[in-house]
Amino acid sequence: MQPPTEATPPKLIALEQIRAVLPSLDLIPIIETGFVEYSAGKAVIPPVGELLFDRGDVHIKYGYIKGGEYYVIKIASGFYGNAAFGLPSGNGLMLLFRQKTGELASILLDQGHLTDVRTAVAGAIAAKHLAPKNVERIGIVGAGTQARLQLRHLRTVVACRDALVAGLTEDEVVRYKQDLEHDGFRVATTLDPSEILPACNLVVTATPSTQPLLHAGELRPGAHITAVGSDTPFKQELDVEILARADVIVADSIAQCRDRGEIHKALDTKAITPDKLVELGDVIAGRAPGRRSESDITVADLTGVAVQDIQIATAIVRGLA
Amino acid sequence: MQPPTEATPPKLIALEQIRAVLPSLDLIPIIETGFVEYSAGKAVIPPVGELLFDRGDVHIKYGYIKGGEYYVIKIASGFYGNAAFGLPSGNGLMLLFRQKTGELASILLDQGHLTDVRTAVAGAIAAKHLAPKNVERIGIVGAGTQARLQLRHLRTVVACRDALVAGLTEDEVVRYKQDLEHDGFRVATTLDPSEILPACNLVVTATPSTQPLLHAGELRPGAHITAVGSDTPFKQELDVEILARADVIVADSIAQCRDRGEIHKALDTKAITPDKLVELGDVIAGRAPGRRSESDITVADLTGVAVQDIQIATAIVRGLA
Repeated sequence: MQPPTEATPPKLIALEQIRAVLPSLDLIPIIETGFVEYSAGKAVIPPVGELLFDRGDVHIKYGYIKGGEYYVIKIASGFYGNAAFGLPSGNGLMLLFRQKTGELASILLDQGHLTDVRTAVAGAIAAKHLAPKNVERIGIVGAGTQARLQLRHLRTVVACRDALVAGLTEDEVVRYKQDLEHDGFRVATTLDPSEILPACNLVVTATPSTQPLLHAGELRPGAHITAVGSDTPFKQELDVEILARADVIVADSIAQCRDRGEIHKALDTKAITPDKLVELGDVIAGRAPGRRSESDITVADLTGVAVQDIQIATAIVRGLA
Repeated sequence: MQPPTEATPPKLIALEQIRAVLPSLDLIPIIETGFVEYSAGKAVIPPVGELLFDRGDVHIKYGYIKGGEYYVIKIASGFYGNAAFGLPSGNGLMLLFRQKTGELASILLDQGHLTDVRTAVAGAIAAKHLAPKNVERIGIVGAGTQARLQLRHLRTVVACRDALVAGLTEDEVVRYKQDLEHDGFRVATTLDPSEILPACNLVVTATPSTQPLLHAGELRPGAHITAVGSDTPFKQELDVEILARADVIVADSIAQCRDRGEIHKALDTKAITPDKLVELGDVIAGRAPGRRSESDITVADLTGVAVQDIQIATAIVRGLA
């Protein structure tokens, strides 16, 4: 048999290397470009692959931007009882392959961190384009890793430093408060999520809840809500009536939000119709309207799109080159 | 913020380690067990993820056997013009994650070799259960890596050592002949695939063709054909009339073969109806009939099922433990 040609071994990139290069990257424009390309039809993003277990769920997000160097396959999991084993709930990795040859170029052993970061960056992008001008107080529902990253990433797009966090336990919200006050926020805490909407006009939900945590009766005019927690057909953080009452509903991917997330629930119950939806990349590019007045209620539903993974993974690999 | 618990780093397994452990594994029963579990409904295998490029195609096959230790995500690509860059056409890797926690346990950097091997083993399994008792001559359509592995893996299930190979160029078939004669076969060569069916009663097709290479008019009574090349909705190696004339059509996965491979083409053109299909795991387990007489014409359509990847990847990891 002919001696098989061996491919160049892939570059293995450890979490420490990724953490070291991240601060040098200006991620908001990098991820914005991804959303714009996606909404302009320049990305090929097949439906999300999914494995659902009793203990957690696994998502495979993958695709490429036409004419780019790489295609990216990203695996991310959430196993929400992992704390009992002394392990983080989130995990995952990203794989970059060359579009020209199919060669595996890099393995980013990010343990889910890049998924966390690109999700938080998308939250900041949604706030940049949709939040009211005068953010009085930021409300955060959830007090875990993603809830921390969301508030931190809002620093570059919102001047407000007052936050109210709603968590499940006193211990959890106290630790959240300590950490985020260290980052320059004034943080009040509650265990009752129904306090969030009356007190805050920029709200982010970042929980794995399967029951609505925020309700339409609590809404104030002018509020913006970004829901990032719901990424499966079964998770839900917002009462569908919130989407029915919203003036603008922005999906990171309309195709994907039909099958999962808050929009999926609202379509399913006929609380909204598909013509009410606009896509984040179109709002960023000015091809679709976002907020039109300071009294508009706006909702962004972020289920997480592979184009974010493509953009952040490519930026890391280039940043390390 | 709480110090993040870091997961145990995954075990990286290089191609040389994989090649070293492979000869110690009895892969036919290992993969047979996978097919049997799959057909008995004990495996969770979502639809194949796919990226199609001008230059090649990428498949993501993934899933798990209920109650097993791991879930497996396998990426395999075929970029058929890679020889021009001095690279093999096939590439890929396998990832094993723990079902209990979602942790990445092992990365098998097999460069597509395990996909090649488990495909060849499935060919041997199909022949073991479906070939006529008296194999007079083995016909191989295609003269590449998979065509070599198919013939080699038939050694353990078929006594016949006479083969006829059909390739695209004289150079290719001469190299094939040299390699396989080294392995104990007597190999005749042709550039005309229409010579295969009249001369052989056990035939394997292993090409990326998008046009039928074998036709019903060439069929002999008693023949068995295994088609392994067609793994996308666009590839095709067998004239649909062959499937129409077959007494038994075996799919590695009926669900998957509805969307890709020879069966997909034959259903699409209404050459066959779905009630004609049986599944390989059911034939292995004796739950469905295979060949009933020495004059039966049998066809196995192997599109490649994630359960094969789960089985071979788990066996490699255990073999190295």
